[in-house]
Amino acid sequence: MKKPEFEPSQEVLSGETADIYFARTIEILRHEGLNPIATMELFSSRAGMLCGMEEVKSLLDRVLPKDCREVWALDEGQSMDAREVVLRIKAPYQSYGLYETALCGILSHCSGWATAAREAVAAARGIPVISFGARHVHPSVAGILDYSAIVGGCAGCSSVAGAALAGIEPAGTMPHALIIVMGDTVRATVAFDKYMPPEVPRVSLVDTFKDEAEESLRVAEALGARLNSVRLDTPGERGRVTADLVKEVRVRLDLASYHKVKIFVSGGLDPERITYFLESGAPVDGFGVGSYISSARPIDFTADLHEVDGKPIAKRGRIPGITPNPRLKRVM
Amino acid sequence: MKKPEFEPSQEVLSGETADIYFARTIEILRHEGLNPIATMELFSSRAGMLCGMEEVKSLLDRVLPKDCREVWALDEGQSMDAREVVLRIKAPYQSYGLYETALCGILSHCSGWATAAREAVAAARGIPVISFGARHVHPSVAGILDYSAIVGGCAGCSSVAGAALAGIEPAGTMPHALIIVMGDTVRATVAFDKYMPPEVPRVSLVDTFKDEAEESLRVAEALGARLNSVRLDTPGERGRVTADLVKEVRVRLDLASYHKVKIFVSGGLDPERITYFLESGAPVDGFGVGSYISSARPIDFTADLHEVDGKPIAKRGRIPGITPNPRLKRVM
Amino acid sequence: MKKPEFEPSQEVLSGETADIYFARTIEILRHEGLNPIATMELFSSRAGMLCGMEEVKSLLDRVLPKDCREVWALDEGQSMDAREVVLRIKAPYQSYGLYETALCGILSHCSGWATAAREAVAAARGIPVISFGARHVHPSVAGILDYSAIVGGCAGCSSVAGAALAGIEPAGTMPHALIIVMGDTVRATVAFDKYMPPEVPRVSLVDTFKDEAEESLRVAEALGARLNSVRLDTPGERGRVTADLVKEVRVRLDLASYHKVKIFVSGGLDPERITYFLESGAPVDGFGVGSYISSARPIDFTADLHEVDGKPIAKRGRIPGITPNPRLKRVM
Amino acid sequence: MKKPEFEPSQEVLSGETADIYFARTIEILRHEGLNPIATMELFSSRAGMLCGMEEVKSLLDRVLPKDCREVWALDEGQSMDAREVVLRIKAPYQSYGLYETALCGILSHCSGWATAAREAVAAARGIPVISFGARHVHPSVAGILDYSAIVGGCAGCSSVAGAALAGIEPAGTMPHALIIVMGDTVRATVAFDKYMPPEVPRVSLVDTFKDEAEESLRVAEALGARLNSVRLDTPGERGRVTADLVKEVRVRLDLASYHKVKIFVSGGLDPERITYFLESGAPVDGFGVGSYISSARPIDFTADLHEVDGKPIAKRGRIPGITPNPRLKRVM
Amino acid sequence: MKKPEFEPSQEVLSGETADIYFARTIEILRHEGLNPIATMELFSSRAGMLCGMEEVKSLLDRVLPKDCREVWALDEGQSMDAREVVLRIKAPYQSYGLYETALCGILSHCSGWATAAREAVAAARGIPVISFGARHVHPSVAGILDYSAIVGGCAGCSSVAGAALAGIEPAGTMPHALIIVMGDTVRATVAFDKYMPPEVPRVSLVDTFKDEAEESLRVAEALGARLNSVRLDTPGERGRVTADLVKEVRVRLDLASYHKVKIFVSGGLDPERITYFLESGAPVDGFGVGSYISSARPIDFTADLHEVDGKPIAKRGRIPGITPNPRLKRVM
Amino acid sequence: MKKPEFEPSQEVLSGETADIYFARTIEILRHEGLNPIATMELFSSRAGMLCGMEEVKSLLDRVLPKDCREVWALDEGQSMDAREVVLRIKAPYQSYGLYETALCGILSHCSGWATAAREAVAAARGIPVISFGARHVHPSVAGILDYSAIVGGCAGCSSVAGAALAGIEPAGTMPHALIIVMGDTVRATVAFDKYMPPEVPRVSLVDTFKDEAEESLRVAEALGARLNSVRLDTPGERGRVTADLVKEVRVRLDLASYHKVKIFVSGGLDPERITYFLESGAPVDGFGVGSYISSARPIDFTADLHEVDGKPIAKRGRIPGITPNPRLKRVM
Repeated sequence: MKKPEFEPSQEVLSGETADIYFARTIEILRHEGLNPIATMELFSSRAGMLCGMEEVKSLLDRVLPKDCREVWALDEGQSMDAREVVLRIKAPYQSYGLYETALCGILSHCSGWATAAREAVAAARGIPVISFGARHVHPSVAGILDYSAIVGGCAGCSSVAGAALAGIEPAGTMPHALIIVMGDTVRATVAFDKYMPPEVPRVSLVDTFKDEAEESLRVAEALGARLNSVRLDTPGERGRVTADLVKEVRVRLDLASYHKVKIFVSGGLDPERITYFLESGAPVDGFGVGSYISSARPIDFTADLHEVDGKPIAKRGRIPGITPNPRLKRVM
Repeated sequence: MKKPEFEPSQEVLSGETADIYFARTIEILRHEGLNPIATMELFSSRAGMLCGMEEVKSLLDRVLPKDCREVWALDEGQSMDAREVVLRIKAPYQSYGLYETALCGILSHCSGWATAAREAVAAARGIPVISFGARHVHPSVAGILDYSAIVGGCAGCSSVAGAALAGIEPAGTMPHALIIVMGDTVRATVAFDKYMPPEVPRVSLVDTFKDEAEESLRVAEALGARLNSVRLDTPGERGRVTADLVKEVRVRLDLASYHKVKIFVSGGLDPERITYFLESGAPVDGFGVGSYISSARPIDFTADLHEVDGKPIAKRGRIPGITPNPRLKRVM
Repeated sequence: MKKPEFEPSQEVLSGETADIYFARTIEILRHEGLNPIATMELFSSRAGMLCGMEEVKSLLDRVLPKDCREVWALDEGQSMDAREVVLRIKAPYQSYGLYETALCGILSHCSGWATAAREAVAAARGIPVISFGARHVHPSVAGILDYSAIVGGCAGCSSVAGAALAGIEPAGTMPHALIIVMGDTVRATVAFDKYMPPEVPRVSLVDTFKDEAEESLRVAEALGARLNSVRLDTPGERGRVTADLVKEVRVRLDLASYHKVKIFVSGGLDPERITYFLESGAPVDGFGVGSYISSARPIDFTADLHEVDGKPIAKRGRIPGITPNPRLKRVM
Repeated sequence: MKKPEFEPSQEVLSGETADIYFARTIEILRHEGLNPIATMELFSSRAGMLCGMEEVKSLLDRVLPKDCREVWALDEGQSMDAREVVLRIKAPYQSYGLYETALCGILSHCSGWATAAREAVAAARGIPVISFGARHVHPSVAGILDYSAIVGGCAGCSSVAGAALAGIEPAGTMPHALIIVMGDTVRATVAFDKYMPPEVPRVSLVDTFKDEAEESLRVAEALGARLNSVRLDTPGERGRVTADLVKEVRVRLDLASYHKVKIFVSGGLDPERITYFLESGAPVDGFGVGSYISSARPIDFTADLHEVDGKPIAKRGRIPGITPNPRLKRVM
Repeated sequence: MKKPEFEPSQEVLSGETADIYFARTIEILRHEGLNPIATMELFSSRAGMLCGMEEVKSLLDRVLPKDCREVWALDEGQSMDAREVVLRIKAPYQSYGLYETALCGILSHCSGWATAAREAVAAARGIPVISFGARHVHPSVAGILDYSAIVGGCAGCSSVAGAALAGIEPAGTMPHALIIVMGDTVRATVAFDKYMPPEVPRVSLVDTFKDEAEESLRVAEALGARLNSVRLDTPGERGRVTADLVKEVRVRLDLASYHKVKIFVSGGLDPERITYFLESGAPVDGFGVGSYISSARPIDFTADLHEVDGKPIAKRGRIPGITPNPRLKRVM
Repeated sequence: MKKPEFEPSQEVLSGETADIYFARTIEILRHEGLNPIATMELFSSRAGMLCGMEEVKSLLDRVLPKDCREVWALDEGQSMDAREVVLRIKAPYQSYGLYETALCGILSHCSGWATAAREAVAAARGIPVISFGARHVHPSVAGILDYSAIVGGCAGCSSVAGAALAGIEPAGTMPHALIIVMGDTVRATVAFDKYMPPEVPRVSLVDTFKDEAEESLRVAEALGARLNSVRLDTPGERGRVTADLVKEVRVRLDLASYHKVKIFVSGGLDPERITYFLESGAPVDGFGVGSYISSARPIDFTADLHEVDGKPIAKRGRIPGITPNPRLKRVM
């Protein structure tokens, strides 16, 4: 994964996406002529994987005065503890006060997604996990969701935008819609094979019209060695994909000598269900995970001022002065 | 709330935010010369309040051929049952197949937020609820989050973008940062009063440096009749805001004859906690709700084809043919 | 259901199936010349449906002296409360003391089965339930098990012996073995239709090789109006039979105009699962219930002496004298 | 325990105890002239102790053609895992298809009883356990129940038939009925001692009329050194037998120098309650266990065809071909 | 129950039993010359029955200046809500400040006992309850414990001191010690009958040496019409007293025509167990309750100042000014 | 802690605090001329710390005949097991039979308090615990409660009487009442400092009127080096004392260089809450524990006769004869 390029949008820079009271605060301070060097610290409400820091740094680099700024941070993708300070900004308050909403929001949302992805990836114990969650979030964040999933360890993602941010190729098989429009799984798979460039793996979705085991053998016969995988996505109405189904499809493919055809599983997967497949000994070659990642709760971040013009200060309930954290690195 | 204006973004129209396999499907169908009139239905995974439909309709209006389209839908803000069909599209499949990701994503995310907002509003039994959740989501969706919260019944929201979408004025008080930079709650409140236009309500945040009851009396003395409210946002380290605290502040304000000063409560509120305040008889005049709304799980939507060129069809596990739903209205 | 005929076996009459200590007791009493008129009462450990009484009465009629016996009992199939006396025997003790084991055992085992059957039947709310449990009990009791299930309300049973005891025709479809030996569901169904007498309903088992919905249509096409039902018995490895599967098979049969073909469900059914089908609105026409009935715990019965030669007596913990129960009827 | 002799009954051989659909299957196959060499495997639904295999082998030996049969099996009394294949039959299908019901039924019922007995025996940690369960099952299976209990490790059983099958002497004390008919525990015990042959142990039941400790001393005084044991069977109405009661009776017997009189406990015992006695340090010399064994759920067995005429086959959900199990031994 | 007479002890009046800081407070205020009219309110931590108020009033009457005091209170034995003000004292602070410890302590301890007694009495639904708890508390409070139990509704108590405070006769039967020293229950009961004055009811304790039912008949035969009751106090080692035991003793007494002998039950009784007896239909004529009452948690009381020299005041967390409670009556 | 001096009160010696039936027993035995040497044993119902034994020995020394007594006991403050014999008395029964109520009561109540104190002290891991429970018990036992708490390991107690019994100085800070009467925390603290002797530690209660952190700094500034501690007793209405509050007060005191001022915490403390403070790393210097100790359930004691005139005896359910316990020491 190469370093992503984030460009702050006009809506963020203008404060349009911010809470109104920060704009008012800046206005009041300007009237009062107050612009102290203030130190703000951001910490998370619970443990997880930090994500969004690259986008945050792009924003800070754009707004903080180059000659009067000190920023310490953890890296994108590092683990963080609950209430650990992951970002410290020391700069004139008016330069960055307006962005408290955006700073917290980027880290909260991205860290939530990356942490969930990491849990699914950990459960899969080395078997590739692909992020399929774009369809459950607003398209404005479909790309950053998939980027976060890749930071969290996913081997691929289905959205074009997410793959672009992460610097990889998008991954995917075929939708049920293609098969339904063409009326038959074998026909759809043959057409896919005919028109797609050779580097796109041939993965056939085999639960649309017939029994999965029967359909797997039909598409294997139709494509021969060009068939890369079958995907099992059996709906809940038919009992979801079970470990026994994967084992049976594997045996039936093997009995017909299709040993190289891989089996890819999707549909309502989460770490518990992935673990069930692995502990049941099901020979899964890849998992597609959707809403477990996309529906992850954001990890709420809080921003606190701890020093104003060099003097320790804090609101009630917080400890005045800089919070020591040797893991932080000076990044600006 | 006036009718919002949504304009599909270039990223959505180009398929950049879509799952890659839909682009491939369209390409295969073009090669095969297949573009049947297909009927797609979208239903939700659980009950809730439908939101995002206005944005969805803007997108469909842009991409479906005007002379060959039929669209039925529920209205923005209507209640929906689990698995109820809320949108039916009948049009040439190639015109809209690419947008399945975006259609599901918009409805999933917005309905999740609106449903959570509605729960908080229901718990508040008529007392206004303001959405304060922008700081926990990516700024790209801060506006649409707050828009969804307003659809869900919130009386206001703090983000400028959300208020613009919903056609209202943004709401907000003052952040702890203003008080910490100015060093004293009374000083900050007086400055706020001095520089803000008269239509902005004077709401003072009273838990920063001193006991909330003491500080409430100090700001009331400083602003007199111009003080609209005090906001209690006591952090967990100091035991959060309790019903007893609200009652005591009310009595102490009343004993000093500040009967008109209202009390606004925020900090980790959810329906259970709002209910606790009301059932304890705490005289709260407004609630600020953040992560309960912003962290709401999206309500996953699924899109299924049920007819192709007039013939009932469905994948295994689904019922072939149109799903009757008399609540649907023809919208295009 | 006509009145069954039970003939006490030689093993019971000889005391071979009894606890050894009863034989010893009779021997001691003979040596001592003691043969008082003793009154014994039997009561159950928990509430349920009484079954086995007909067999018990056949035994008592054979062993009690005709001129010196009084027997009161509830009827076969009546409800009984926990600890309710269901049988009272007043006769010379030596004539029946040896049979305490058999009397308790018959009532315990049969009442356990009948009570479980009644629960399944109650859950089915009028939809016929067939007992399929013979395969989980020792063949020596397969018949009496199915007899008890019929007493409990089942509409039929699969064992020949049980049907004979209950005076009805045995019920059944076809086993997976027939289809596997013949290699195809349609072929097996056609052969069944060819050789079975016309009064045997044509019920095809449709989950053996192909998707159930597809197979249902294939057998319907093959047999036409002669097809009575399809049976769904999907194994756990394929997610068991679900309510949605039943609904979908119904719709697909109806779309092909096979409205008269009924749907019969089996496989791990119990009252909870039967209720699930009914509350989900699944159009089931019959249920096959096996181990819920056959594995039912016996309802333990206890026998106590309460009078000896007209004097109230009882062991510690029991109440001396006859236990009044107006529901008992004099039967001998 | 010597090797039992089982003779298949006429009811089993004729198919009377079978499910009707197996008779029909054989009839159809005869009409079709189909009698392939088929391989059937039986596996259990849960782990436990295998029992009934001796009876099963007697049946198979009778029905399978001597020159065309291969049978592999685990031994009577071996432990088995859930879903482990315990029996594999390879023979012409028509020769054994009719007996699927009986094969499964024998193994299910007997294994259920033996497994429960083994649990009680394990809990007793070397202290003898006697099966007293005959009175809770139908007399037709009283013998095979007690046989299974002996296979499960019980040191004795009370039914004459069970003892005969297991090749041992039946065990037992005296019933409450004897004492009630004779009117006094001492009188009944003296009579027992007078008429029973010397090899029958003198065990007196001491909870019928007086306090157990008082009665124990009375019978010990009456019989002197000939008294083998007292049995405590206190009913629930008097608080059941407790560990403290056993200890107290032991001390009071010892204080009167009856050190050799043993204490036998019965009444609602199960592994949990046996463990309670042992962990409380109660000096119990023997346990009588009834309904925990007799009411054990059968362990359901399933029979599947896996090969027909040498070709791997299986119904959906099962794996085609022979299931390897190195523990199986060729027995025919 | 006549009005009790409480006399404040020297230890209370001197402040010896008080928390040291109250003595110091009075000393400081004297040095400072501060003795304002202060209003103190006492409220309980949870709902229950108020007890101890008579003793509190005796104390206040002794220490408050007759010409400058106002006291409002609820009555002894009234129900009180959680946090309800039950006592309000308006007087010069120096006159009563030292007694805050004693005031809270008396009400806390007595209300705890009375509330538990009331729960036992309520469970007994009109059947008399006798307090037997003196043996589980320090003798210095044995009397006030039993007094509180009588306030709570008990019909009697066993301690001489408690009966004296409550103005009734003490109640009791005989201890196991008497029977053990005399060696036989009948002998002890006959001696009791011989030496006790006629007004003491003859209640025989029947579980010491023999079975309770047998012993009940023996003492009934010995005393004839003079026997008032038998008491069942079976220890846990023998299964405690059960409802079935009570029923059986009743029937056996009635069969022998001792219809007038009552049955009294004791031993580990609490409301749940009393309810068990009543709902089981056990014919109990009286309950003896010990540690459920004596071990009751004190109901903690808190004392707060709400006015000083006529001005509303309160510590943080409390509401300044008099707390309205129309149930309070002026008592001084 | 020096050896306490206990003097039996007249109420105890006269039998006034005893159960009436013991007085009657003594009267009957006198009439019968029975006064055997009887051995009584006392054991507890559950494990804990033994307390009250010193007072018990004072009583026995007074009543038992010097020339005919043997007493074995565990020491004050020793651990005891459930049902362990802690006291054995061998003497003429008439000399001590009357005191069974008092003996059990003293040990029950005191052991309950001491055991609870020990639990709190254990949780505090070396940080001093002060008993503040006098206000929740009747003043007649306030002293013996605090004595028991000291036996249980508390470093101090607030009642004058308890400290006297334990031979230490009473401990305490100042009540809210002092501050409310004086109107300001600083004024009250300065007065306390002015009038109290120098050996009394200056501990200021800082939650009455202002924020605890602010008030702590104010009193520290007022008293300087003479301030020993601040006490945090924040009421539940303000969220109780939290670990974060302690940490923050510590940092704010340290930032102002008041490193030597200690922090004392009170208010609803129990072992769980003490553990919470320690595991959260809160720098607490002392804990004040009230109702956890004062509301502790008494540990019920039972007294049984085990020998009469040298012969083993016991009531049903108990073991006749002396119960061996090598931990007992001969004390008389």
